[in-house]
This record gives sequence, C-alpha cells and structure tokens, in this order.
Amino acid sequence: MEHIINYLRTHRQQHLDELFDLLLIPSVSTLPEHADDIRRCAEFVAQHLSNIGLKQVEIMPTGGHPVIYAEWLEQKNVPTLLIYGHYDVQPPEPLDLWLSPPFEPTIRDGEIYARGASDDKGQFWAYIKAIEAFLKNDSVLPVNVKLLIEGEEEIGSGHLHQFVLDHAEQLKADAILLSDNSQYQRGTPTICYGTRGLVHGEIHVQTAARDLHSGSFGGLADNAIQVLADIISALKNEREQVTIPGFYDEVAMVSDAERANFESLPFDDNELKQEIGIRDVIGEEGYPPLVRRWARPTLEINGIVGGFTGEGTKTIIPAKAMAKVTMRLVPNQDPQKIADAAKAYIEQTLAPSSARVAFIGGADCRAYLTPMNHPIFEPVTRALRATYGKEPVFARTGGTIGVLSTFSNTMGVPIVMIGLCNPDDNAHAPNEHFTEELYYLGIEAAARALYELREWK
Amino acid sequence: MEHIINYLRTHRQQHLDELFDLLLIPSVSTLPEHADDIRRCAEFVAQHLSNIGLKQVEIMPTGGHPVIYAEWLEQKNVPTLLIYGHYDVQPPEPLDLWLSPPFEPTIRDGEIYARGASDDKGQFWAYIKAIEAFLKNDSVLPVNVKLLIEGEEEIGSGHLHQFVLDHAEQLKADAILLSDNSQYQRGTPTICYGTRGLVHGEIHVQTAARDLHSGSFGGLADNAIQVLADIISALKNEREQVTIPGFYDEVAMVSDAERANFESLPFDDNELKQEIGIRDVIGEEGYPPLVRRWARPTLEINGIVGGFTGEGTKTIIPAKAMAKVTMRLVPNQDPQKIADAAKAYIEQTLAPSSARVAFIGGADCRAYLTPMNHPIFEPVTRALRATYGKEPVFARTGGTIGVLSTFSNTMGVPIVMIGLCNPDDNAHAPNEHFTEELYYLGIEAAARALYELREWK
Repeated sequence: MEHIINYLRTHRQQHLDELFDLLLIPSVSTLPEHADDIRRCAEFVAQHLSNIGLKQVEIMPTGGHPVIYAEWLEQKNVPTLLIYGHYDVQPPEPLDLWLSPPFEPTIRDGEIYARGASDDKGQFWAYIKAIEAFLKNDSVLPVNVKLLIEGEEEIGSGHLHQFVLDHAEQLKADAILLSDNSQYQRGTPTICYGTRGLVHGEIHVQTAARDLHSGSFGGLADNAIQVLADIISALKNEREQVTIPGFYDEVAMVSDAERANFESLPFDDNELKQEIGIRDVIGEEGYPPLVRRWARPTLEINGIVGGFTGEGTKTIIPAKAMAKVTMRLVPNQDPQKIADAAKAYIEQTLAPSSARVAFIGGADCRAYLTPMNHPIFEPVTRALRATYGKEPVFARTGGTIGVLSTFSNTMGVPIVMIGLCNPDDNAHAPNEHFTEELYYLGIEAAARALYELREWK
Repeated sequence: MEHIINYLRTHRQQHLDELFDLLLIPSVSTLPEHADDIRRCAEFVAQHLSNIGLKQVEIMPTGGHPVIYAEWLEQKNVPTLLIYGHYDVQPPEPLDLWLSPPFEPTIRDGEIYARGASDDKGQFWAYIKAIEAFLKNDSVLPVNVKLLIEGEEEIGSGHLHQFVLDHAEQLKADAILLSDNSQYQRGTPTICYGTRGLVHGEIHVQTAARDLHSGSFGGLADNAIQVLADIISALKNEREQVTIPGFYDEVAMVSDAERANFESLPFDDNELKQEIGIRDVIGEEGYPPLVRRWARPTLEINGIVGGFTGEGTKTIIPAKAMAKVTMRLVPNQDPQKIADAAKAYIEQTLAPSSARVAFIGGADCRAYLTPMNHPIFEPVTRALRATYGKEPVFARTGGTIGVLSTFSNTMGVPIVMIGLCNPDDNAHAPNEHFTEELYYLGIEAAARALYELREWK
C-alpha cells in the first residue's frame, strides 16, 4: 500500500490539474442552456475513465441527463463496491458574490475555489484518482468496482430511481461507497451512516372567487392568507412537535449506543448561532440537538405566497394563498403514509368550512441507515485513521440523498459515506471551495478504503 | 325647480356626449406614462367649469397630481357646499377582459361602459351638469358652492391631506357633498353617512442570516415563515376577534336607532355567497353582518411572501418572511394608537426570542361619521325621494375615503355621500359601467339636493 501512497504524493500537481479541467466545465443541471456542458462533462469523465483502464465505460441515457457507468471486475473473491458520485453542479448565482469566476478554478490560501469543487466533482474525482493509482502501479485493484456518476443530483435525481431499478443486475454490489458530504467538523475524519428521507407538498387555500375589497367585505368574508397562516401555525405545537396525527408513530428510536455517540460529538450552540446568524437553537422538545438534526423528523415551510406584496397599500382580502412544505423523515417512516396523513389532517381537520383547502404532495424517499455497528465500518475506520492520523467520528446527516434509499431498498447492502471536505465549504453558495490538502488526503483515503475493504465480507 | 328638471330631461344627449368626452381621457393616476393624460383631464374639467360660469377656476399644484378648484359664492344667506370628486381612474388592466376598450365609452344594454364611468367621473360630472342647469336657466345657484376635484384618489390621496390643511380657509364650507360610492342595492336611493378609517403595516420576520438547508438545520433553527404564520394566526382568535390589546377599547357603540336601521336593510347571505364566491359569511362573533361591515373594525392580511415558491422543491428553511396588513377602523378609534398597539403586541408579545420581528406601520386616517339624525339629511332625503320616487336608505360604507376625516377634522361640518350608481358596476374591475338612466337621474338628484339644501341651516 505504501507505494500507492508514495505515487499519490508525487502526482499531486497532475491530480490538481485534472480536477481543474473538470471544474472548468459549467455542468449546471438545472439550466437548459447548459445541456451541452452537461454532455461535455459526461464525455470528459467517461473518456478519463476509459483512459485509466476501467471497462464497459458507457454514457447511459435516462429520461434526463445521462449517467456515466464504468466497471472493473477482474479480481476473484473480493467484494464489489458500487461507487456513486455526481458530475452536475448547482447554479453559481449570484455571480457578483464570487471573488473569482465560478468556472475558473483558482487557489487562494490553500483552498480550491470553483462551483463543484467539493460538491461533488472534487470528492468523486478522488475515487477515480485512487483507482488510477492502483491500475497504474499494480495493474489490478484490491476490490472490484462499479462506478455510477449521475448528472441530476442537484435537481433531485428525478430519473435515477427508475434507472437503478432498470439496471439492478448491472449495478449489483456488496456495498456502496460515496463522498457527497462533509466532515462533521473541520479536521475530523467522518463516516456518515444515515440520511433523512423526504416528503414534499403544497398547501393551496382559496376563500373567494376573486380578491375582495377589504372595505366592502372586511367582516363578512374569510381571508385566504389568514386561513393558511392558521393551518401552518397548527402544524406545530408550542413544543415544536409536528401535530399531524401518526407523524411520529413509526419513528425508529435511537439506540443507547447511538445516543452515546451523538453525545460524544462536540456541539456548541454559540458556534452554530454565529455560523448561521440565529438567535436561539430551537427544535422539538425533549431531544438533544444532534438527535433532532439527524434522528427526528421535521416539517418546514419552504415558501409562501399570496395577495399583494408590492410597494404601498392594496386593501384586498386575498382569495388565494399557497405554501410549500417539506418534511424530513427518519428510519421506519413511510413517506407515502406521511404524505397521506398530512393531506387528511390539513384538508379534513385544519381546513375551515369557509375555505377550499388542498394539500398536493408526494413521497420523495425514505430515510436510509446502515447500523453504526455494521462490520463494513471497521476497514473504513482503519483507512481514515491511517490517512488523517486520528480516529474518525460517526455521524448521520440531516439531509437527503434520494438514491441511497433506492440502493438500499433494491440491493439491501450497506452504504458508506465518507466526508472528504470541510462543513463550511459553501456548497450551494457563492465561493464554494475544497481545501487543496483535503483533496489530496481524500484521494489517499479513497485508496486506503479500497485497499482495506478487500478482505471485508 | 320643475323648469330645471325639464331642462335636464331635454339635454340628456348633450350630457351623455360630454361625459363621453371626459371618459375618453385615460387619466390613470398610478402610471407615470399617463401623466400627460392626467394633466389633459384636469384641463378639460377646469375649462368646462369656466365655460359653465363657475369662478376662480384653478388647476392647483400639490406634491402629486393637481387639484381642480372652482367656486360660485354669489348668494347671500344660503349655505356653502364643498363638492368633492376625483378625475383620476384606476388602471384598466387586465385589458383582455374588457368587452369594449376601457377608454372608448360604449353603451350596451343601457349601461355606459368605460373606466371611470361610475368611479368617479360619471358621478362628479352629475354635480357639474346640475350646476350648469341652474346657471343657464336662472343665472344663480340655490346655494353657494366650492368644487374640489382631485387627481389622486385612486392612489390614496397622498397629497390631499396637506392640501386641505394648507387651504383650509379657501375650502371652508357648511357641509361637504360627494358621490363616490354606490347605492346600497340596485334601485335603492342611498345616503351614506360614514366611512371606516385605515391603518396599514408590514410585519417583517427574520430568523437567520440566510436561508438554511433544511437537512442540515431542520430541528435546530427557527423558520421565518412559521414564525410569521404563528403571529398572523395569533392576531385573531377563534371568535374572529382581533387580539391586539386595546383594539376595541374606543370603538363607538352603534346606537339602538342605528342598529334598528341596519336591521331594516335587506341582507341575504346566499346572495353574497353567490356574488363573491365564498362558502360562508364569517366575521367577528356577536355582531350581525352589516354591523361587522360598517361599524366594527377589522384586520386583514393583504399579502404575504417568503422563501421559495417556484416550480419543484427547494428544501430551505427561509430566513425572511413579510406580510402586509391593513386594519379598517371605526369611529373613535385613533389610528396612531392602534398602529402603536399593533407594533407593541407583535414585536413584544407575539415575537418569539428566536426571531427578529418588526412591525412597520402607520396611521392612514380615522373613520368619519355624520350622525344619522343630523338635520342636513332631511333636505337630502327630500331630494332623493323626489328623484327616485322612493324613500332613500341610510347606509355607512366599510371602505375608506381618506380625505373625509381630514375634512371632518379641519372643518367639523357634516358630510353627505349620495350613491348614484349601482353596487355591481365593476368599479376597479374590467367592464366598469354606469347605468345610463342612473346617470341622468344622478344629475336630477344633484340638482334637487342643491335646491333642497338652500334653506338648510
């Protein structure tokens, strides 16, 4: 293994140059005008996978942006790992807040600044560089690998679920490995073993055929915004609990071991307040912050609109109002059941007789969890310990990577997420960056993980 | 008096043609591109006032669109009436819903279709035609008159308050007469003796420095829309009462006589439901509908905005949200006191410690009321009875004409509003219209009112 690490350390400049080439391509998935860039990016990645010796490299169509597939399956009696990543990026706007152009990668103070630097180009590229190192030096990999690099993660992976179902045999593996998340905190190697699920919806309220004059009808007609506010307010109680009947019924309890792990992780209210500019750290009563963030479901109103919001005064009773809602789910909650319960509660219990109220929602995905004590984490722990010189921590994420529950449901295999970047790297925001040193260490961590996993199973 | 009525009945075509000339001018006050039309309209009206023999005709500047002033004060020992109207109109949009162009007056089925037909060109023009009839036939008016025709009513009369204060001596009169309202219902001559006042405000909520990722921070950070919804919901209780402390403290009670009057007026829940497309007629518990509409204060959320409301899902915890609020006030409520009470309640009682909450509001105007039993209503009643052949009803309006409280405060004289048009004439909406016959009757009513008021006082 040491010769691989030595090789990696002597090829850092090359690895940086190649990442820069990838970061130059503005593969923004949400904007139609970047369709050519998306295609160009997929071709760039696929060509590189062929160049380094991967087999069956293919740009595979989906209903949306294509998926890149590649494999190397030439070892006997070793596990097969499916490595996941995404080559699409968030839009860079607002452009004027970037200190250097988002698609002209630049190093300042040891940080690689570019859209996609950490999310996820820099992180998935680390695995490719690790694989290349083995193939170049040894002509074999310590494990078999399949790579699946998608182009729609930033727009919800809308076509990947079906793709995975349609190619279940081709994608079959013993475990799934990815890095599309950050370390728990700066300088802390992190194994992430769970994500939350998602349900989304819109609440539509209509109280009259048209907006009404508040002079003529104030005191006679209900107000769509008032009704919507009453509904939203009633969705949570004063203990910050979600009031949808049955919402918590199937929530998996956190084991004592896991709770002990949560409690061992540093969490500083004041640091968080500073970081995101909040006055209080708040949440569901009775649970400590990290349990609320990772292991308890939440409901958020993401947006609201209704009536007149321009300059000046418009004395209307608005006839319509709408709010967008998402709920983060935790293990054992069924997204469809939650969406149905929300619909029934909002439309039948909370809606007043004076309003037409509709909840239009749907299940996005379940939470996923690989038990913290799963044996696969032992070799991964060794890899991270060797790379970063300290013990990794175990963390969940409160976020959602929709395809993980699909993987988990179709394959029933463990999923390992290794955070390679810092938590404050501005993913999805201006001046996204990836610490140059963490990029190099990420390649080493990926190489060591492939190596350590050879005997797992 | 009969010769005047006969004159009016033989000059209907001329009166219609002149109104059409006025309606051709698109004097939309809110749109800068109509500034020339506003000026042209003011000049058209002023020129006409000179032509018919009024004195001191002047287009007087304000901070915004000009005011037209004229007078005729040549009688001794008669009351002086200040006649108010406005020559500006609402924007005509949406244009595609008009069956004939808004500034090409057209008669269909006995209705004059045009923007401004009833609000307020057709109504204030009736007074001018009545005055003309007296001056042409008798060379004198039965009363002295001052005319004040403004150009900013549809945008809140922002400069008229100061104008009235600055020209208090010039505008001094024994009573104020206007028609900028409708009959209580079709075919019912209506004397309106009160309007509601107005307070406006915006509620601003901020919970974090920026929108937050609901995966990373859901369960830790408050949500600006949730906070705003909680505040809005708390502003009313389940009895549809406004919960602002002191909100009702100074509300003038409705006298038994007035309540009896309200109860004598026809009010049909089902008709109202049909008319405006509502499911229930609702309002403050314990008061009948017309008391709620005219004599009880109300609070309405006019608009709300926050977070993401586009297509698809954006899993943010929004950092900011805003709602616009107006309150209709009734006699004895002090708008500044109510605005202050709202601010204190929202910022100090309802705001949670997790949010920065600001209420930015202001007092617009007080309600105004001329007591129903004021002697001025006797001659006006005679005028309407003679014109329409039936007894007029007494009504308040739930709306607000801001300048009336200024008049009332500076002059302390009675204000008489005579509704000349139908309540369903689409003022402020496409296909605004004024019934041709009601226009002619309106001129007769104005003439009879001037005549009957000669001996009042």
